[in-house]
Amino acid sequence: MTALEDFVALSLLPPWCWLRAAAPLRAGEQPGVIVRRLVAEHWPDEPAKCSTLYARAAAATRRAAAGHLAAIPWSDPAYPVALGTIPDPPPVLWASGCIGALASPSVAIVGSRAGSEYALAVAERLATDLAACGVVVVSGLARGVDSAAHRGALAGNGVTIAVLGSGVDVMYPPEHDGLARDIAVRGAVISELVPGTPPQPHFFPLRNRIISGLVRAVVVIEAGVRSGSLITARCALEQGRDVLAVPGNVLSGRNRGAHALLRDGARIVESADDILEELGMSGRPDQPAGPAADPVLDRLTPGEPLDLDAIADRSGLSAVRLLPRLFDLELRGLVRRAGGGRFVRIDRTC
Amino acid sequence: MTALEDFVALSLLPPWCWLRAAAPLRAGEQPGVIVRRLVAEHWPDEPAKCSTLYARAAAATRRAAAGHLAAIPWSDPAYPVALGTIPDPPPVLWASGCIGALASPSVAIVGSRAGSEYALAVAERLATDLAACGVVVVSGLARGVDSAAHRGALAGNGVTIAVLGSGVDVMYPPEHDGLARDIAVRGAVISELVPGTPPQPHFFPLRNRIISGLVRAVVVIEAGVRSGSLITARCALEQGRDVLAVPGNVLSGRNRGAHALLRDGARIVESADDILEELGMSGRPDQPAGPAADPVLDRLTPGEPLDLDAIADRSGLSAVRLLPRLFDLELRGLVRRAGGGRFVRIDRTC
Repeated sequence: MTALEDFVALSLLPPWCWLRAAAPLRAGEQPGVIVRRLVAEHWPDEPAKCSTLYARAAAATRRAAAGHLAAIPWSDPAYPVALGTIPDPPPVLWASGCIGALASPSVAIVGSRAGSEYALAVAERLATDLAACGVVVVSGLARGVDSAAHRGALAGNGVTIAVLGSGVDVMYPPEHDGLARDIAVRGAVISELVPGTPPQPHFFPLRNRIISGLVRAVVVIEAGVRSGSLITARCALEQGRDVLAVPGNVLSGRNRGAHALLRDGARIVESADDILEELGMSGRPDQPAGPAADPVLDRLTPGEPLDLDAIADRSGLSAVRLLPRLFDLELRGLVRRAGGGRFVRIDRTC
Repeated sequence: MTALEDFVALSLLPPWCWLRAAAPLRAGEQPGVIVRRLVAEHWPDEPAKCSTLYARAAAATRRAAAGHLAAIPWSDPAYPVALGTIPDPPPVLWASGCIGALASPSVAIVGSRAGSEYALAVAERLATDLAACGVVVVSGLARGVDSAAHRGALAGNGVTIAVLGSGVDVMYPPEHDGLARDIAVRGAVISELVPGTPPQPHFFPLRNRIISGLVRAVVVIEAGVRSGSLITARCALEQGRDVLAVPGNVLSGRNRGAHALLRDGARIVESADDILEELGMSGRPDQPAGPAADPVLDRLTPGEPLDLDAIADRSGLSAVRLLPRLFDLELRGLVRRAGGGRFVRIDRTC
């Protein structure tokens, strides 16, 4: 019996056991000891529980080996560091594809299964742009926004990770089998569920905590008020990840969840730059600079609001001529009002 | 020579003079004294300046009387209190229609002249709903979002005010002549510019400070990054008014200005409720309550996070059966995770 099978046996206990297992595992207790204690505590009337668990664990590891699936127990150096920090980390991750993908900085893009054309276009665009910057795009392989995000990352020649609510060899939805294969070429399809596990509704909220647990930030696109994406967002906040949201049409009702996140302080996402900036990976490119030789603008210094008299003195223009020019500069975004009738140059260098 | 003509003469000086006039007027100085001092100071070489000003002022008041236009000087009880508090209040407001409309709580809706179908639909919807709640809708009678807001308020049988960048008897854009007439039936068309003044580009940024100065909150719909609506928003912030913004499509580029406002802390608007709530005029209606007799939910109290053991004890359900129910409640928005594997009931009464 290997340590792997202990971790797999632990993972075959109901999910609430993982919360109980995390602290002892972090304290260095052996997974086999934890399994036996939990079983003795919660299934005292089932003397065969342990042997059944281990038989299922052995079957799962055999099935994984036969299907060329990797098993990454919590103790494995390949186990993603970020995921290990959540309150209830999966004891084992099963993976199809390249487990090296789990080590790169990543962002989750999640949203409606019934995403509008708009949501799909945004998901694909963001994923393509993130992937092109070397950010791994994590999502749930679901219909709609999730698969658009995966496809976008692939279109950007990037790496993407799909986290399933079934075993990695049980494709759901079935029509995404080809997409999963494409993902596994340079990325990975992963799950905490042993190979062969069919999808069940209650696996998906659990799966969402892995999506958020893997990443530094979760981007929500088109989530209804009771969407699973909001659960992912809530998990992300609980796990200390950043939550960002893409705004959209307020009349369709499709964006209420994303807008509620924005109302609660999520960062607004218009482009991949917003996400990269949040991750500290890139600054927003500067606005184009204003014309260099404006007689009024050149007399103004960013951070130094001046009243009309002072600007008139400096520029040699009368107040009567000055005001239309200042309004023009204001309209062009080069000058703004600073209160009390003063004007200040807008700093274009920061 | 009446006090009105002093105020009109003051208004005929260039706009930067109003900043200089505000403090003395607030200190109780007579407008005629201020006019003569400003003229002596800034036009010392034009001995006829004063008499020319007063001749124009008299002509303007005659023209207003002939056109049944009201002149509301700063000293008039009908002058809007809020507008009188801005740094550079207009010395005189000219109005066509019902000046009583200036006394009601009001909100500005402003946005792109080339508004998309979406922007026009949102502007109209918000204005209709605000007007139906007794809120006066203020805008600039421009093409696009402005006129959609006016039309929406009229459709809600409400009151709306148009602030022009020309004299109130010089319609711009000309095709909005009929709309202006409809507005004046229960609302008002107003301007700080003397009757007969043709529209000029630099009047519009000045006009925007009146729009924001009249209202308690400015709602921006579809503003580009250099849009005049952003100037209105900036005036509003300078004047201590609330700024709210409607989000939209991030791919079109049309909403960059509104999204920038949201990024800077503007409140997000999905419906008139958001605006009314900001004004303290109405609470957001409660979400529908959850089912009353859920065996798990009934054991939970808002504000009291519990772990699985405690919920199992209270509900009499095993942890194994509990988790799927908790996830279901979570998906239905009735329960949320509270960190450390605990769950808490969401308060639906506040």
